[in-house]
Amino acid sequence: MASSKTPVQQAVEASNEKYAASFHQGHLALPPAKKYLVVTCMDARIDPAAAFGIALGDAHVIRNAGGNARDALRSIVISEQLLGTNEILIIKHTGCGMITFRNQDALKVVQQNLGSLAKQEAEILFNADFQAFPDIENGVKDDVTFLRDSKLIPQSVTISGWIYDVHAGRVRKVV
Amino acid sequence: MASSKTPVQQAVEASNEKYAASFHQGHLALPPAKKYLVVTCMDARIDPAAAFGIALGDAHVIRNAGGNARDALRSIVISEQLLGTNEILIIKHTGCGMITFRNQDALKVVQQNLGSLAKQEAEILFNADFQAFPDIENGVKDDVTFLRDSKLIPQSVTISGWIYDVHAGRVRKVV
Repeated sequence: MASSKTPVQQAVEASNEKYAASFHQGHLALPPAKKYLVVTCMDARIDPAAAFGIALGDAHVIRNAGGNARDALRSIVISEQLLGTNEILIIKHTGCGMITFRNQDALKVVQQNLGSLAKQEAEILFNADFQAFPDIENGVKDDVTFLRDSKLIPQSVTISGWIYDVHAGRVRKVV
Repeated sequence: MASSKTPVQQAVEASNEKYAASFHQGHLALPPAKKYLVVTCMDARIDPAAAFGIALGDAHVIRNAGGNARDALRSIVISEQLLGTNEILIIKHTGCGMITFRNQDALKVVQQNLGSLAKQEAEILFNADFQAFPDIENGVKDDVTFLRDSKLIPQSVTISGWIYDVHAGRVRKVV
């Protein structure tokens, strides 16, 4: 048996109990039915399924700090080479935390709070690159260009870039 | 103006139009209100907000192929060091694509479909490591251990591991 549960864990279990009780989509196949994938930010204010109309089973959803394409590349290659997706939407958003700090700021926080061994680990495991970026619109364009230039993504894959406004709940295509 | 749109892009815009029309949560703050983060798979059959009861604004959601903790580490560090989260739930799932192939299979597909330059790019950008794993339960335990051992995550952060059953819609705590 799992040991004692935190309030968050108890809440997840209670919510899931209700979800499972009326769940009727256990027949869905592994490959995304609509053959597309969305890369977006981990930001708590984004609910991709609701905001972008992604029905269960339709698309892969990759999320990380910033909706970063480089970070997502491993997952993207698996999605398009092994699971048949042929369209990628990069969706960054207004008010992203990633434009509020620079790499060296984050590294300084890590060093101060967690010490030199933690800083070393960041260097070894992700090159101490937190992938902060200064501007949302250029960030979207850069990531789209990165993916379009990548040899790991065939020309047949359609790639677009979007910005989601977390205050208005509205998304718009940028590129 | 953005150029012509694919059917997927048109569907995203149409769905979002409705979402934005009744959106009333533009006041939410950047840091996750409930101070937790979920790492789960990009799998199309998972809707984390619905299945795990994550209300808008409450938690960071990180998703990648396999719900992989190593891949998520950069984002996790940003979440806990810069945005105040103090609890991590790793949620992998039954029927995951990541247990259906081995690293060398994926690399062979890349080489065959996309050529040697693509294979090289995979080696440079993510060490040609697709992070396939053979067993879900051990995969969850390994990732929880990896995070608990990481110097980048202070002991004060609670870390648990879960498995979501995509056929039953039910999640259970493993560790």
